[in-house]
Amino acid sequence: MKTIKDSVHDHIEVAGVARDLLDTPPVQRLRHVKQLGTVDLVYPSANHTRFEHSLGVFHLADRALSHLSIEGRQAERVRAAALLHDVGHGPYSHNLEGVIYRRTGKYHDDVDGLLATGAVAAVLEDHGLDPGRVAGLVAGAGELGQLVSGELDVDRMDYLVRDAHHTGVPYGVVDHERLIRELRFVDGALALAAGNVQSAESLLLARALMNPVVYNHHTARIAKAMLQRATERLLDGGLSGEELRRMDDHDLLAALRADERTREDARRLSRRDLYKRGVWAELRDTPEALLDVDHERIRELEGEIAAGADAERVILDVPGRPRMTESSTRVVVGGEARSLDRQSTLVEALRTTQREQWRLGVYAPADVVEQVGRAAVGVLGLDVDGALVSDVRPGVHATLDEFE
Amino acid sequence: MKTIKDSVHDHIEVAGVARDLLDTPPVQRLRHVKQLGTVDLVYPSANHTRFEHSLGVFHLADRALSHLSIEGRQAERVRAAALLHDVGHGPYSHNLEGVIYRRTGKYHDDVDGLLATGAVAAVLEDHGLDPGRVAGLVAGAGELGQLVSGELDVDRMDYLVRDAHHTGVPYGVVDHERLIRELRFVDGALALAAGNVQSAESLLLARALMNPVVYNHHTARIAKAMLQRATERLLDGGLSGEELRRMDDHDLLAALRADERTREDARRLSRRDLYKRGVWAELRDTPEALLDVDHERIRELEGEIAAGADAERVILDVPGRPRMTESSTRVVVGGEARSLDRQSTLVEALRTTQREQWRLGVYAPADVVEQVGRAAVGVLGLDVDGALVSDVRPGVHATLDEFE
Amino acid sequence: MKTIKDSVHDHIEVAGVARDLLDTPPVQRLRHVKQLGTVDLVYPSANHTRFEHSLGVFHLADRALSHLSIEGRQAERVRAAALLHDVGHGPYSHNLEGVIYRRTGKYHDDVDGLLATGAVAAVLEDHGLDPGRVAGLVAGAGELGQLVSGELDVDRMDYLVRDAHHTGVPYGVVDHERLIRELRFVDGALALAAGNVQSAESLLLARALMNPVVYNHHTARIAKAMLQRATERLLDGGLSGEELRRMDDHDLLAALRADERTREDARRLSRRDLYKRGVWAELRDTPEALLDVDHERIRELEGEIAAGADAERVILDVPGRPRMTESSTRVVVGGEARSLDRQSTLVEALRTTQREQWRLGVYAPADVVEQVGRAAVGVLGLDVDGALVSDVRPGVHATLDEFE
Amino acid sequence: MKTIKDSVHDHIEVAGVARDLLDTPPVQRLRHVKQLGTVDLVYPSANHTRFEHSLGVFHLADRALSHLSIEGRQAERVRAAALLHDVGHGPYSHNLEGVIYRRTGKYHDDVDGLLATGAVAAVLEDHGLDPGRVAGLVAGAGELGQLVSGELDVDRMDYLVRDAHHTGVPYGVVDHERLIRELRFVDGALALAAGNVQSAESLLLARALMNPVVYNHHTARIAKAMLQRATERLLDGGLSGEELRRMDDHDLLAALRADERTREDARRLSRRDLYKRGVWAELRDTPEALLDVDHERIRELEGEIAAGADAERVILDVPGRPRMTESSTRVVVGGEARSLDRQSTLVEALRTTQREQWRLGVYAPADVVEQVGRAAVGVLGLDVDGALVSDVRPGVHATLDEFE
Repeated sequence: MKTIKDSVHDHIEVAGVARDLLDTPPVQRLRHVKQLGTVDLVYPSANHTRFEHSLGVFHLADRALSHLSIEGRQAERVRAAALLHDVGHGPYSHNLEGVIYRRTGKYHDDVDGLLATGAVAAVLEDHGLDPGRVAGLVAGAGELGQLVSGELDVDRMDYLVRDAHHTGVPYGVVDHERLIRELRFVDGALALAAGNVQSAESLLLARALMNPVVYNHHTARIAKAMLQRATERLLDGGLSGEELRRMDDHDLLAALRADERTREDARRLSRRDLYKRGVWAELRDTPEALLDVDHERIRELEGEIAAGADAERVILDVPGRPRMTESSTRVVVGGEARSLDRQSTLVEALRTTQREQWRLGVYAPADVVEQVGRAAVGVLGLDVDGALVSDVRPGVHATLDEFE
Repeated sequence: MKTIKDSVHDHIEVAGVARDLLDTPPVQRLRHVKQLGTVDLVYPSANHTRFEHSLGVFHLADRALSHLSIEGRQAERVRAAALLHDVGHGPYSHNLEGVIYRRTGKYHDDVDGLLATGAVAAVLEDHGLDPGRVAGLVAGAGELGQLVSGELDVDRMDYLVRDAHHTGVPYGVVDHERLIRELRFVDGALALAAGNVQSAESLLLARALMNPVVYNHHTARIAKAMLQRATERLLDGGLSGEELRRMDDHDLLAALRADERTREDARRLSRRDLYKRGVWAELRDTPEALLDVDHERIRELEGEIAAGADAERVILDVPGRPRMTESSTRVVVGGEARSLDRQSTLVEALRTTQREQWRLGVYAPADVVEQVGRAAVGVLGLDVDGALVSDVRPGVHATLDEFE
Repeated sequence: MKTIKDSVHDHIEVAGVARDLLDTPPVQRLRHVKQLGTVDLVYPSANHTRFEHSLGVFHLADRALSHLSIEGRQAERVRAAALLHDVGHGPYSHNLEGVIYRRTGKYHDDVDGLLATGAVAAVLEDHGLDPGRVAGLVAGAGELGQLVSGELDVDRMDYLVRDAHHTGVPYGVVDHERLIRELRFVDGALALAAGNVQSAESLLLARALMNPVVYNHHTARIAKAMLQRATERLLDGGLSGEELRRMDDHDLLAALRADERTREDARRLSRRDLYKRGVWAELRDTPEALLDVDHERIRELEGEIAAGADAERVILDVPGRPRMTESSTRVVVGGEARSLDRQSTLVEALRTTQREQWRLGVYAPADVVEQVGRAAVGVLGLDVDGALVSDVRPGVHATLDEFE
Repeated sequence: MKTIKDSVHDHIEVAGVARDLLDTPPVQRLRHVKQLGTVDLVYPSANHTRFEHSLGVFHLADRALSHLSIEGRQAERVRAAALLHDVGHGPYSHNLEGVIYRRTGKYHDDVDGLLATGAVAAVLEDHGLDPGRVAGLVAGAGELGQLVSGELDVDRMDYLVRDAHHTGVPYGVVDHERLIRELRFVDGALALAAGNVQSAESLLLARALMNPVVYNHHTARIAKAMLQRATERLLDGGLSGEELRRMDDHDLLAALRADERTREDARRLSRRDLYKRGVWAELRDTPEALLDVDHERIRELEGEIAAGADAERVILDVPGRPRMTESSTRVVVGGEARSLDRQSTLVEALRTTQREQWRLGVYAPADVVEQVGRAAVGVLGLDVDGALVSDVRPGVHATLDEFE
């Protein structure tokens, strides 16, 4: 057994299959994939990696298994899945999921494949575990898969607390110890024990508060969009989607710096010399149809805006429709496990809040952002007054860290 | 004025020259230089950067200036120096100082030059500050330079607390707020006010406790030594010292991965597949003369050990003689500022402790480490019993994170 | 200037009028009034006092004044009011407000009087401050009074964070530093600057999450109700309301221990040998009219229930109608200061949640609690199924600390 | 099994004998005995109690037993002893130990008796545990008794961290999790595993740093001395030592407030209107013989000083000779368990430091403190220059909280 010191959970004990998996290249690779992609451009301390997060998820899974009295091979499978749950992530993690999906048809690297071959498969088999079943757990299959990937999974508990710790934003601090102690299996599915409606709500609230301030902060979104466009240029230049998703953050940044077509993007991202917002439109100011356009149409619209503004580079950033998976968290109330959205008045309010926080963005270099904003309002058919046009205030420093 | 959220000091207000300097490429570059180099291979959460540290040092300098009632241009110079104090650092920071020194005659990039040209110079001049005087403060010149670089500098206060926060090791937690409040200028030099012998001692103790557990942890030292040798191979292959010191961590890792001569080192460092200790010798078991050999002689000795062990790669790691600069910290006692080593019984004890913690290491790949250890004992003339030969225990995982 | 070490805000600098007020008996008395009354029977670490809270409120007021650039006598008045805002609190603070109100017509000691006489008046006058105006600020009068007592006051910011720190419940952790930085005066009233709808919401959410788990935890409510009844017996025995409200926690506990009529209550409260719940009814299961009965009628109902159950002692605990003052917090949106309940979907949801969390309780000693519960359902006309009857499970320890 | 939320260790699980003991009057009484006596007059947040500390010690003992693989009745005995280890403490804990000792011949209440009778004995016997053997463990008897009371006991680990948490002084933060994981039994005695010389040193250093700043802070010492003298007056007035040691803090304070002879002391202690130092002498300035005088002689000397200064009340405070029990902590080095003072250079230095920090104090009301100081120097034969005479600076507030 080995003990690893973690800045969030203090001492993490690693034994059995987890200990052997730790040494495999796919797990060690996660040291080089940042947890929050471009969020460090808003919160300079947010440099934590998928590796420490994976250790944290393993740790919480291990504690949950102990509280649920699940032992033996079944438990080892869950521990393996917890430690491995992010091995498929590409460079900059969720930031490039969409880009990878459009090229490979999958958001991540092929987890089944990663687990069925090489060092990981060897370790799993050494411990008598079937790679396919572990991959199933990673995908959330079965009762125990919910613990790894579901509404009440330990993934969420770790990342909320860890992201709060490293950004310095307190909103993500959930009482993960209590949540884990209160987990039960009711009718074959994970639920929180009676008396925990509020514990479940606190998990939703933590996400809802972290979303606009951290995960969807406009500066992080601008940088992410710039990274996506630059990476697409690399792909257009010959890089394959399969190669991309196996890179780590260093590989991608090195490739962006080395390629003539993306060198300027790499410089901008490295030096925090980012595009600015020409448009920042709410849902109610955005034509419904815009939410359903595909990536090709987005590129066309960018071209039209660029042409209208006589600008070279324009980015149109349309997030998906708001959704809230935690709302189906089950809590025992009056003896039966009920979905939180049936039980909690807050869920519907948070759904509304999420719709209100949705923003469409149009970004461009600072010197052209005003005309780009004006052109975009016309091309996209946005409500002129609603869509904030330009946050470039003359004389204000364009690249300063800011968290508002 | 802008406010940046920091995981250690919470909100950091940035205004004046500091705000403008923040946007300059040399400062933004520090986002890509890790604070602790290879220590993240021991403490997975230790991914913090010189950028956030520089912000922290600026913040503490700002507070110290306020407590010392220093204002105006003089204060702006100190704030600029605090923010800029690490801009000369090469990739992996202190890890490669020696390598850079041997090629360029300086441990860092040329700070005078960096401050006198380009964006930094422009900002300093905009604010009516002389780059040369700011560079002087970075080097510790004058009364106020001691605040930036001296026995009682804010650099030390920030890094002890920050490194403790990110490694999870509590020993570095000093009461920096109190230390800053108690700073005084006595006879033209910085000192702690009366009643602070213990505050001064706590700073020394924090360093003394962090040293073996964090800064000189054997795994971090092995990785550092491997990185140094690999970087030297790059330099032998044509990279200049000047190019090296301007790289950031990504650049260097990309270069190591791209070059055939260093690809295997890069893989080992990225996957934590490190050399092991064949020898780990205390000061009393090491011939005095060994402490004074130069780098060339070390390379020769490595060759002799390799030959004797029939091994390809051997690293001999001889740290410098132990020293303890904080011991000359001045504290007011009985009305006069006295050097702490005159005042505190602990200082001499810590000096002894430091000598006891000194270790010479000989490292090699796991499969040859036992014979390398035996050969090294002979070649180096070490005390056979004292020098621990080999920590490779059969069946133990060679790359597992461990913090003991 | 003096510096005090606080476990929440670290160093608190006290100067000017605050420093002199600190030594006055009414302020020092707050050392002996616990912040959370009987909550320490649920959370054993919740032993913090109104004294440290008052220091914290002073500290946050001082920072807010600095951010709002308010100086001079006006600022000193606010600082004095912040430090003095709780001097009127009786023993066990809010726990006995109702009891004191029924005897004296005021919830607290006479703050105007306390400030206008004795040591406090002398200090205020020494610093050229009018006691009447300071008392006005304590009562929330005027623009600046809102900072001390209003929807966005520093009182709330301190107690949420402090109560979270001392109970160990993370929900109260608000970003008070940010809230204070974002305070503005808009049209003569305090408001949060633009971009802070969410900051305002986080303050409401913190309260809403702390309420059921800390402030209205059923065990704390039972103990509070027992304390109230015992104190009423002391008052019936000759203690005056004026004497009561000047006592501190020790005085009251000593009086309860010394008096034959209350000795048993004092023993039960000191040894956590509390009554149990016979009824725990939701709002929807409670006849509307019950919410408006006065204290005399409650004592009659208690008598009827006791008679019906053949029990000696019964407590009927009917909280007031749910209210939520923070909902009128003003936030700048689109250039104008708007009330949060107009702006935030969450406010209405939290109002509903608060109604759902409301509970009527009937408490009695463990050995009679079942029959008391049954009798109470009849006497009070509660919905039989809805009102949980008895939580005394045979063989379960009646006095164990529990936080569910 | 029950879970209690603790501000230091978060969730503490209580089961078995500990759960039943929790409800007994002697354990619940500890809620009303503060952990640090008069230290809250220096650090206003230091209001934590022996109750939460006892829970913490139980928790750490439980974890240590788990790491040492000790189970069954043997483990239950240790858990019981850990929870009960402070039940003998009188009011204000260590502050009045000496007073109680002089009247009853024991520092504490009779622990053997407390465990052998009443509710505690009943619970122990219910769980098949012999009260005598549990009392033996509390006294440190046997291998396992060292875990409860010895150089490496969990008592020390909890109080250092807890006192640091509640005072806000960071020096006490030890890595208790690591210390507990590294405990071993070597040759029938507790020791730290190999590689932990530094962990052992950190425990000593924490104590050494906390001593002058917290435990022996001069203001806390003055208040403690005043409390002792006042309590002695109560004893002279008829209170028995046996009655005294069964009181809790409230009882004693109420008694001091009620008795005419001590009413003024109670007021001074409650309002922080303390005596001041007339003398504060180092060891080297104090005649050796003074360290061995008994309590009666001290009272005589006080009388002589009072007479010489024409003062009514004088307190002479002579601490015992410095000692350092942790120095015999055993650590495995080179395969054998060695005493830390043989292994660590720091131990001897800390011993010297402790001698240097020793202070003899003479205290008196502010208005007579200068003449008392002068008289004391003569009566006691102190070095005139060395003994600081009077810290009453005119115009300075005598009762202000201060932590320097």
